[in-house]
Amino acid sequence: MQKQVEYEEAIRTKYPEQVVIAIAKDKDGKANPVTLGWTMIASGTPPMMAIAVASRHYSIETVRHSRCFTIAFPSSEMADAALFFGSKSGHDIDKFAEFDCKTAPAIAIDSVLLIDAVANFECTLESETPAGDHIIFVGRVVSSHINAEPKKRLYTVGPGHKLGSVS
Amino acid sequence: MQKQVEYEEAIRTKYPEQVVIAIAKDKDGKANPVTLGWTMIASGTPPMMAIAVASRHYSIETVRHSRCFTIAFPSSEMADAALFFGSKSGHDIDKFAEFDCKTAPAIAIDSVLLIDAVANFECTLESETPAGDHIIFVGRVVSSHINAEPKKRLYTVGPGHKLGSVS
Repeated sequence: MQKQVEYEEAIRTKYPEQVVIAIAKDKDGKANPVTLGWTMIASGTPPMMAIAVASRHYSIETVRHSRCFTIAFPSSEMADAALFFGSKSGHDIDKFAEFDCKTAPAIAIDSVLLIDAVANFECTLESETPAGDHIIFVGRVVSSHINAEPKKRLYTVGPGHKLGSVS
Repeated sequence: MQKQVEYEEAIRTKYPEQVVIAIAKDKDGKANPVTLGWTMIASGTPPMMAIAVASRHYSIETVRHSRCFTIAFPSSEMADAALFFGSKSGHDIDKFAEFDCKTAPAIAIDSVLLIDAVANFECTLESETPAGDHIIFVGRVVSSHINAEPKKRLYTVGPGHKLGSVS
């Protein structure tokens, strides 16, 4: 049986929610990673993926500047990196300089890949659509990479940025 | 270490992926449910959620007609309903007439809720954006409901529409 409740209570039923790290370079060439839970695949042919980014986040200007971005699936071992990249702002710091996280240049776009991630998807910006306090960016996947060693994805498993793997 | 692979191979690392059932009424008043894995939250204030629906699916015209839709989080006990609603077309059949799945009228929009779901979100259509072979619909959540009894969400846990719960 259903009971009507406030949205804030109902949305607590969403967990586990997948985590991605989106990365784009700013006008100074600094690669800026941000951790996001609001993401989905958006098209099969051609492959496209979508991310929703808070309008006030530094990532907005990096994606608009680069017109491309990486979507990395962090592994379950990357919770500390995900928390760091999700709680600091690229306005203030160079996140990759302050947190040790191995990167490699992307192949088809001007961005970077996360070497220890489960997978990385290089995307060119296809569209942006405002949605309330966020912007939805849709990217077309132009190059894909997986970890040579099988890894498990990272999820938010409960409120308060509780991260972990699921099975 | 990362290795470049085809998108089809890389995207197999996505699991588990959450499942929702989106429901909208057609011009004859028939409520049409469709099972989707491509969905995300899109805004916090006001609350909005996004779904990506294949362009050729009957659901496209139902959402465009109603300009509103329900997003239900099916419970882990609803795998059979999710498979049925995801594999049949509302072009051909009345899915709710052919598969026994308890519904109740929505409160704020002209749609229905799934009584046994984990949660239901009533949405008014905010925008639509084409993305390759899909359309992204963004809905503004105007009423929210949860199951009086705690339930686990349903996920696609592997290729071939393998559904189950995660922990």
